[in-house]
Amino acid sequence: MKWYTEDWSEECKFSIAYDKHLHTEQTPFQKIDFYQGKEFGTFFTLDGLMMVNEKDEFIYHDMIVHPAMATNPNIKNVLIIGGGDGGTAREVLRYGFVENVVMAEIDERVFRLSQQYLPVTAAGVEEDPRMTLHFEDGLAYVKNAADKSFDLILVDSTDPISVGEGLFTTAFYEECHRVLTDDGILINQHESPYFAEYAENMKKAHHKIKAIFPITHVYQYHMPTYPSGHWLFGFASKSLSPLQIDEQQWQSYGLQTKYYNTDLHRGAFALPSYVREKLGHE
Amino acid sequence: MKWYTEDWSEECKFSIAYDKHLHTEQTPFQKIDFYQGKEFGTFFTLDGLMMVNEKDEFIYHDMIVHPAMATNPNIKNVLIIGGGDGGTAREVLRYGFVENVVMAEIDERVFRLSQQYLPVTAAGVEEDPRMTLHFEDGLAYVKNAADKSFDLILVDSTDPISVGEGLFTTAFYEECHRVLTDDGILINQHESPYFAEYAENMKKAHHKIKAIFPITHVYQYHMPTYPSGHWLFGFASKSLSPLQIDEQQWQSYGLQTKYYNTDLHRGAFALPSYVREKLGHE
Repeated sequence: MKWYTEDWSEECKFSIAYDKHLHTEQTPFQKIDFYQGKEFGTFFTLDGLMMVNEKDEFIYHDMIVHPAMATNPNIKNVLIIGGGDGGTAREVLRYGFVENVVMAEIDERVFRLSQQYLPVTAAGVEEDPRMTLHFEDGLAYVKNAADKSFDLILVDSTDPISVGEGLFTTAFYEECHRVLTDDGILINQHESPYFAEYAENMKKAHHKIKAIFPITHVYQYHMPTYPSGHWLFGFASKSLSPLQIDEQQWQSYGLQTKYYNTDLHRGAFALPSYVREKLGHE
Repeated sequence: MKWYTEDWSEECKFSIAYDKHLHTEQTPFQKIDFYQGKEFGTFFTLDGLMMVNEKDEFIYHDMIVHPAMATNPNIKNVLIIGGGDGGTAREVLRYGFVENVVMAEIDERVFRLSQQYLPVTAAGVEEDPRMTLHFEDGLAYVKNAADKSFDLILVDSTDPISVGEGLFTTAFYEECHRVLTDDGILINQHESPYFAEYAENMKKAHHKIKAIFPITHVYQYHMPTYPSGHWLFGFASKSLSPLQIDEQQWQSYGLQTKYYNTDLHRGAFALPSYVREKLGHE
């Protein structure tokens, strides 16, 4: 048996077995590796870090998309930054009232390889007439976008290293604020509270966003293949609180979701005391 | 660097570095190993499975104790089954109104070694005048206990293998029901929904308890060093619902907790859809 191993910290590592190393490639942006195992199915890594696997991608993609969609039932224009595997677009496109989805993914190879090896996330995305793909830097895309042109921005990026780094800056969050409508929502990577390095990035991201958006929250979910399994997204908005949602409205859409539900929505925003403290919350 | 490695499934493993293997011992019940590393501090395993480490024991011990204490503010007599490291007793003893705590731990060596190597959980427990230690089988202890003699039973056991097995049986849960007062609460190990073997045990435990107690819930928390990091406890009671708590009352105790808080209490009972489904919930 062969093992893919990821260092979660200097003193902790996580390993997944695979049968086949399906593909390896160094693009101008990062190293992409696709693997196939039994339990986790097909999975891929960027620069050696687990991104998506067939066993638990549903958790991540439910949680990046549905809390925002449940908070604002009038979302029509959506921008996805990154998200090259297609899973975030797949979930957004399930909402019939969404009219336009732009995906700005810096590395086209991630998307093409996902189409080839990971249809569970990528299939059908390019074909949807509401979808526009831009293979370019997300930060550059946002800088050139018109004021108030999106109702929702989903930052589906890597950690704040290499190509993901610019997506954790104040400059980027300010541009997001500018291009969002008055009821606009930004969902961004918020890393994890448990291991020191990730917790540091969590604190920095939250600090920067709090200085720009009037409403900011952090929410959590159980993502077993990400470091510590305790993973976070940031929720920032200009006017809407994710703590006040119309549960019946969301339920009326009739979407079957394996992780998300409206009870869990409320629960996800209730953070452990040590996480609150690190974020500077009461 | 030396590594302690635990198989989380056939295709997934988790490793923690240690500097010293402090102690190893085969007792009549199980193999006990104590290790010491930097990031996780001192930790011990039973039959090769991670039990307690200094980095995240606070999460487990907060979550096994405080949700029940917040649900019933009149808990006076507490029975801990297992819990040899002392951490569960430590948290219970923080409540000044608790009058008696019995700990029935089958393996005295776990407690003595924890006193020696893991004072963070074991120090002060034996010395507390409200504490009674019984080094005997938990199932046997409960069988001999009087009807309605405890307000709270906390099952702080290993997985349903070897010595822990009897603590996952209908016979055991029935005895717990008998010895609990009319407002009594049972908190028990509920394993994890993610890896198949653990999920199977989760389903079985829930199924058995549901047949005995009128009120049953399952709640979750982020425990990074347990398989998948998504870990569960069962909450069963004769009359009280954990969804209706007096938050102010619990807050009035002034307990500082690093993981638990009353917002998180509510959130912990809101399970992902795939977990609800496995448990047979709506």
